[in-house]
Amino acid sequence: MFELDERLANDTVVIGNFPLSVVLMSRDSRYPWCILVPRMANITESYQLTAEQQQQLCLESAMVAKTLMSEFNGDSMNVAALGNVVSQLHVHHVVRFTSDDTWPGPIWGVGEAVPYSDDVLMAMKSRIAAKLATQQDFIAD
Amino acid sequence: MFELDERLANDTVVIGNFPLSVVLMSRDSRYPWCILVPRMANITESYQLTAEQQQQLCLESAMVAKTLMSEFNGDSMNVAALGNVVSQLHVHHVVRFTSDDTWPGPIWGVGEAVPYSDDVLMAMKSRIAAKLATQQDFIAD
Repeated sequence: MFELDERLANDTVVIGNFPLSVVLMSRDSRYPWCILVPRMANITESYQLTAEQQQQLCLESAMVAKTLMSEFNGDSMNVAALGNVVSQLHVHHVVRFTSDDTWPGPIWGVGEAVPYSDDVLMAMKSRIAAKLATQQDFIAD
Repeated sequence: MFELDERLANDTVVIGNFPLSVVLMSRDSRYPWCILVPRMANITESYQLTAEQQQQLCLESAMVAKTLMSEFNGDSMNVAALGNVVSQLHVHHVVRFTSDDTWPGPIWGVGEAVPYSDDVLMAMKSRIAAKLATQQDFIAD
């Protein structure tokens, strides 16, 4: 049975669900940052999914990437499945700006997370959920 | 018309082609590392491809990821489309080992590339090409 990795759960809030994946938002306010986690047990790499699930993940990833870039008007979208620290398959979608702290380097493991205030966290969550809700088959949490 | 970005061309050798993407191998010997570049002009993010091309890229990416992990018996596969330095859409596939220099951090922008000798570069290229050639629709260079 699928259970969200504890570290992912601690570092994020749930925004909602696509048919395959739960959509998480990072609690780190430095970047607009969503993570897709397919709700499948014991999957560490995307090629372990069925061909149909891989295509669905690809579709969901494109919807998240496009939505975030359009909403936050970023300079680049970083899409990455790393899994070195948390092995459960999860796909990062991070909006990058030429003005951000770690540009043009990668963000993972660099600097300290800056948490949102509770109000801003909820506002960001609602803002992204509202935009994703215009996409096919997304159900807000 | 599609033209491979000059920096990507300098940092890699061409292994071959899938229907959508050219497959490059990094000249940095620290990691078994292939890069897929869809042969489409003026594309910086995967969601700018047509839906059909996105699905094809997903398929080609899975074939590269699975082939590299099976051939090099890695501990984790890092799949990432970043594009902060080179904006032309390109998808990294990097085999990671718990024993590698930058584990568990990301590899991009960390440390200095260690070039292969010419012999080993050609041997690695042939080794990966031979494995990819067992996949559907791959044509070695």
